[in-house]
Amino acid sequence: MSTSLKSQEQTLSKSENNKEKKHLYLNPNVIGLKESPTLRINQHCKELAAKGKHIYKLGLGQSPFPVPDSVVNALRLYAPQKDYLHVQGLPELRKAVANFHRKKDGVDILPENVIIGPGSKELLFLLQMVFEGEVIIPSPSWVSYLPQAKIIGNTMHIIQTSAENQWRLLPEQIEEFCRSNKKTDNNPYLLILNYPGNPDGITYGAESIQQLADTARRNNIYILSDEIYGQLHHKGNHVSIAKYYPEGTIISSGLSKWCGAGGWRLGTFSFPPNLHWLMDAMAAVASETYTSVSAPIQYAAIQAFICGVEIEDYLWHVRKILSLLGNRTAKILKDGNISVNDPTGGFYLFLDFTSLKDKLHKRGITNGSILCDHLLDECGVAILPGVDFNRPVDELSARLSYVDFDGAKALSASYTVSLHDKLPDDFLTHYCGNVIEAAEKIVEWANS
Amino acid sequence: MSTSLKSQEQTLSKSENNKEKKHLYLNPNVIGLKESPTLRINQHCKELAAKGKHIYKLGLGQSPFPVPDSVVNALRLYAPQKDYLHVQGLPELRKAVANFHRKKDGVDILPENVIIGPGSKELLFLLQMVFEGEVIIPSPSWVSYLPQAKIIGNTMHIIQTSAENQWRLLPEQIEEFCRSNKKTDNNPYLLILNYPGNPDGITYGAESIQQLADTARRNNIYILSDEIYGQLHHKGNHVSIAKYYPEGTIISSGLSKWCGAGGWRLGTFSFPPNLHWLMDAMAAVASETYTSVSAPIQYAAIQAFICGVEIEDYLWHVRKILSLLGNRTAKILKDGNISVNDPTGGFYLFLDFTSLKDKLHKRGITNGSILCDHLLDECGVAILPGVDFNRPVDELSARLSYVDFDGAKALSASYTVSLHDKLPDDFLTHYCGNVIEAAEKIVEWANS
Repeated sequence: MSTSLKSQEQTLSKSENNKEKKHLYLNPNVIGLKESPTLRINQHCKELAAKGKHIYKLGLGQSPFPVPDSVVNALRLYAPQKDYLHVQGLPELRKAVANFHRKKDGVDILPENVIIGPGSKELLFLLQMVFEGEVIIPSPSWVSYLPQAKIIGNTMHIIQTSAENQWRLLPEQIEEFCRSNKKTDNNPYLLILNYPGNPDGITYGAESIQQLADTARRNNIYILSDEIYGQLHHKGNHVSIAKYYPEGTIISSGLSKWCGAGGWRLGTFSFPPNLHWLMDAMAAVASETYTSVSAPIQYAAIQAFICGVEIEDYLWHVRKILSLLGNRTAKILKDGNISVNDPTGGFYLFLDFTSLKDKLHKRGITNGSILCDHLLDECGVAILPGVDFNRPVDELSARLSYVDFDGAKALSASYTVSLHDKLPDDFLTHYCGNVIEAAEKIVEWANS
Repeated sequence: MSTSLKSQEQTLSKSENNKEKKHLYLNPNVIGLKESPTLRINQHCKELAAKGKHIYKLGLGQSPFPVPDSVVNALRLYAPQKDYLHVQGLPELRKAVANFHRKKDGVDILPENVIIGPGSKELLFLLQMVFEGEVIIPSPSWVSYLPQAKIIGNTMHIIQTSAENQWRLLPEQIEEFCRSNKKTDNNPYLLILNYPGNPDGITYGAESIQQLADTARRNNIYILSDEIYGQLHHKGNHVSIAKYYPEGTIISSGLSKWCGAGGWRLGTFSFPPNLHWLMDAMAAVASETYTSVSAPIQYAAIQAFICGVEIEDYLWHVRKILSLLGNRTAKILKDGNISVNDPTGGFYLFLDFTSLKDKLHKRGITNGSILCDHLLDECGVAILPGVDFNRPVDELSARLSYVDFDGAKALSASYTVSLHDKLPDDFLTHYCGNVIEAAEKIVEWANS
């Protein structure tokens, strides 16, 4: 099933436009646009906490772990760097990013085909802005893909996946979409793929990835592969689709997730040589917008992407903690009649309350948004409704980010245990108690 | 005289589009878009310098002065800050920015009406993107205003100013434009004003500013007042138009020029309460694009905008050096038959070679672009042609940035002399020799 959202959205904009036109002189594409839900819930939680309410902050998807020391020290060292840098990014950093993908993903990226932006979200916005063609995303998917298309006025198609298929996009769904969609041009499609996934915490194995690659190639589809959680595959087994479809894949990465530096704002896109023209157009727009990424941050990021022994060790401990916590949280939820897949990467679970539908409906909880509002009000647990991730409005689904713990403390404790040994039984209650408690509260609340 | 560029540009885009359509699937608005000229010449100079050629780098408008020590130290202190910050900016920073404008400009800005972006260029892009109405800029004007409008597909009108009027926009020109322009809507205009000016280095006095304010109010024009060089008024006498037209003025500022931190990427817009809806729309788009400005940079910027004694002292020395150098450079050029106004702020001179037109035409130098190419080739002097600043293509004009010197050294030397005393006679040859030499080379070359 696919839905084209363009016309629907334009109608919405127009009616809202008429209502507000008395005072506001705004581009119809941005009228009614709200702040991104993840940032909004973060702000809302801060306000509730400031009022003294205990909040379980499982809304925003921010890494709980500190930026590795060597990277922080590099920022201190390069603090006086004040020059405007090359719009595409510092050459040494682009080289480090290219080597990172070569080493980690086994793909042949050249430094001249890497562009550095203030977050991969900004880079994706530029890509959507310069690319002339229709865009495909699976649902559920990250909150910002669709609003970006609306702001720009692009046509975006959503392909629905299902819980039974572990929210995976299947090659036959792509084929079916391409057969049935009526296009007016012969331009390629752009498919945005994200794995390990936000909001689902699941990834694709090598075989599925290869099948998706073949399907994309056959159907003239470029892929923007959002692999920002790649290094947070819980077993360190991430497979980039660029390996199987190098000529059609743009890899998106950055410091925000695996390096714990979301607030630093640095993302990277790596292109194949034959899509260089897309990157050049993005760089031209970048030169008229953000100019270049903050110089001290770029210098510090070199240290991160070189990814030496200290950072590799950090990553293994981070994965170990996330895997333990994610699986324990999933178990608590499943034992409480809430469907959820066992996580394999990142720090999200996508919850499906359908089996409790009758019970919840009787309490007036008829969709995910109402569910999340009640959970926050009644239990202080902040999670985000599925509709923010392009799920149907009336679905009883939600995303949980299992990140509300002190990552620095958890990491220090994990460092005292050999990577080959299990973490002690009380590790989670001791270091990640809030997440466990929140999961128990959700179960109790949903079954009451 | 005014020119609407929308239709002209669209035609251009379309024809280029057809030419390239075989390989590239690009938004027609960005086809043919080149990297911003100032960044391009910076890169070009670096490449020439790497080949061993001595280049006088008067192209890019980057402050030669270091970021004040207290601000660099603040960045070191806050290096571990890793959280995603509020999309509008860190509250403490917005408070500091509001106080800065209150103290410096005598205008009543509230912290909740300040937005922080990764450079004021990005903020202006967002403003142009969300505002629904026609935009007016004077010519000459900064390189990025017009390309931004083209990317977005906005209608932008250029009002030509003249050397005789010191490149100042006159109230009667605005009146005349509003009378003659046929609009299809009743939306307000947005006028982008920039002073002290880039590329001209000239400012407006209080009386002119008041007249412009009255004219804007009468004609339903909002003003985006780009005052990024405000603190670089050579006598410290900058007057914000927000003082006379508070309800219709958005003040643009940032760290790039007066704080020497162009590469850090932090800009600020300050709104009047009644234009809050414009800021909200910008923040909504920001939340779907750059998210928030780099956290360590925002924390460090608080120190800059608090603008304590050390920074005030820094600013007075910076002004003293720029005034001396700007006026000396202008004198050399004027003595060499090149028209230029005495600078009153910032670090630019706008050169007019018209009096040497016959001589230059005979040498095949028939416009500013050819002139700049020859100057770079034959003398190693990099300056930018007037056409990059929206001057007519065949005008023999160019912008010179008098910034090619070691600002740290010049500042240290200036600190040894009381602010009330003159700098020694040999100060410029000693510390800013490249700029003086470049001006002499231009004169010699133009008159040869």
